[in-house]
Amino acid sequence: MTSLPLGPGAEFDRIRAIVRALGAAAGPLGGDCAVLSEPSGSSLVLSTDVSVEEVHFRRDWLRPREIGWRSAAAALSDLAAVGADPIGLLAAVTLPRDTREGELTELMRGVGDAVAAVGGVVLGGDLSAGAAWSVAVTVVGRASRPVSRRGARPGDGVWVTGTLGAARSALETWRRGGEPAPDARAAFAHPVARIAPGRWLAGHGATAMLDLSDGLAGDAPHLAAASGVALELDLDLLPLAPSVRAAAGELGIAPAQFAAEGGEDYELLVTLPAEFAAADELRAECGIPLTRIGSVGAGAVVRLRLDGVDVPLAGFDHFH
Amino acid sequence: MTSLPLGPGAEFDRIRAIVRALGAAAGPLGGDCAVLSEPSGSSLVLSTDVSVEEVHFRRDWLRPREIGWRSAAAALSDLAAVGADPIGLLAAVTLPRDTREGELTELMRGVGDAVAAVGGVVLGGDLSAGAAWSVAVTVVGRASRPVSRRGARPGDGVWVTGTLGAARSALETWRRGGEPAPDARAAFAHPVARIAPGRWLAGHGATAMLDLSDGLAGDAPHLAAASGVALELDLDLLPLAPSVRAAAGELGIAPAQFAAEGGEDYELLVTLPAEFAAADELRAECGIPLTRIGSVGAGAVVRLRLDGVDVPLAGFDHFH
Repeated sequence: MTSLPLGPGAEFDRIRAIVRALGAAAGPLGGDCAVLSEPSGSSLVLSTDVSVEEVHFRRDWLRPREIGWRSAAAALSDLAAVGADPIGLLAAVTLPRDTREGELTELMRGVGDAVAAVGGVVLGGDLSAGAAWSVAVTVVGRASRPVSRRGARPGDGVWVTGTLGAARSALETWRRGGEPAPDARAAFAHPVARIAPGRWLAGHGATAMLDLSDGLAGDAPHLAAASGVALELDLDLLPLAPSVRAAAGELGIAPAQFAAEGGEDYELLVTLPAEFAAADELRAECGIPLTRIGSVGAGAVVRLRLDGVDVPLAGFDHFH
Repeated sequence: MTSLPLGPGAEFDRIRAIVRALGAAAGPLGGDCAVLSEPSGSSLVLSTDVSVEEVHFRRDWLRPREIGWRSAAAALSDLAAVGADPIGLLAAVTLPRDTREGELTELMRGVGDAVAAVGGVVLGGDLSAGAAWSVAVTVVGRASRPVSRRGARPGDGVWVTGTLGAARSALETWRRGGEPAPDARAAFAHPVARIAPGRWLAGHGATAMLDLSDGLAGDAPHLAAASGVALELDLDLLPLAPSVRAAAGELGIAPAQFAAEGGEDYELLVTLPAEFAAADELRAECGIPLTRIGSVGAGAVVRLRLDGVDVPLAGFDHFH
């Protein structure tokens, strides 16, 4: 059990209980992907991710094509997190019986757009009636040097791709009955799995990596626990999405806290050797900024500092 | 489109519309599994299958562990249909928020039992809240000589593994408010994917194969359409499960019709060269009977004969 690369939390206690129940039937669980070595020396990587109406999205927020894109991109993000190249995906879709045919087709068009955008194809699917919309996407890819969550070493730098907080900005606005700013809405409806940056980072010395589906505050503890290191993060350094300042102001919290606690940014959190200095190269190749937000130390915790003071932040947990 | 190995029907018109919408993002769709060639010469095979409360099972019929087993076995059956060896599976589970922790653990124990029974492991999973119980299982396996639905040739024999109709017997009894006979209940709650027979058949000349999830009447047209052949099936030859005679009598229909129209038997329908005569060998090795039920002819239809007369039968379609 202690080898499960998961931090604390009820959701992860649940996974630990399942792994105990599975016994010998438990494979390599708890990371972003299952990694299977192949005779060729590369690895096959697999992950599954389910998006459910009223939990991950609402149908008055997103069009069917956006629901499809978003469900696929969320799953593809797990391939990005290990530095894998997508081969394709399988989608198991559940829809109420009164769904119009055109809505299913549009949903699958969004799934197809998302996987085609990163060079993969739709490999299979299944369709069932059900009470609510739900899309379970399983992604499969290949990596020559898969990066796990386990390799961070004291002295490494901690970096994050892109900007944080835009998806939460959209969510908070919808919850108040408003219509999000276009960039925030796009971040939520049309996230882009960081496939090319993930591959680039894997090829440039990444020691550990994961994707921020549950927010920096929720996900960083998994990397710390898996690697057996401390992550010392300076929230003042977080790259904030443009919409964050106003959205955080509405809630009366610091913008950096707002961004660190917000889920579904699907950016990559990565540790790199101390001497790494090629962020501009990544930006030039992939068009994505890479920002240093802290360092790896000894221990197995996450220390978040804001304005020089330690702050406790909550992760983003769908199930509760 | 014409290359999609699917027969007629609303469910398959839906798949054809999706494949059109996907355009270049459409991979090898429409078979039991996606088949990806590997450099080693073998193939990786993948399939996804979702089981939903009130559509595929009811919670007053099955215990959580049985729901898990059944969901996994239904997906594993697709690997059997191409003659693949399971590597493992990923399970995306949706449960209402008030579900007891023990029920999730039991469900996953059933999933683990089913995959361990055929030599695989649980490779990954995801969990979400949702309105109803739902288990989307994606299976991955490897085949040295994957069998498709496309290779049946006029003159081949048509065979079926095991016996048919027991799962429907259980369903019909539950629907009338009764409690099924133990063998019928076991067939529904605890189906066994025909992995070893599938592999054996692939190694003994199978020209085409699929698994009977939608019943012989529902699935045989897919094999006929994919291979561009006629299947001439003599329903008097169907190997009937013990519970079928009584259950068919309750409905006032012929036992063979009852069995041919019943879904979820998860037996294999296979075409083999005319000279094939090793059914006893399969039975000795795998403990499963193999019964010849007809022949392959020219055309692209399925002709079902009962008592010497052509009969039109309906397939089993969950979505409607």
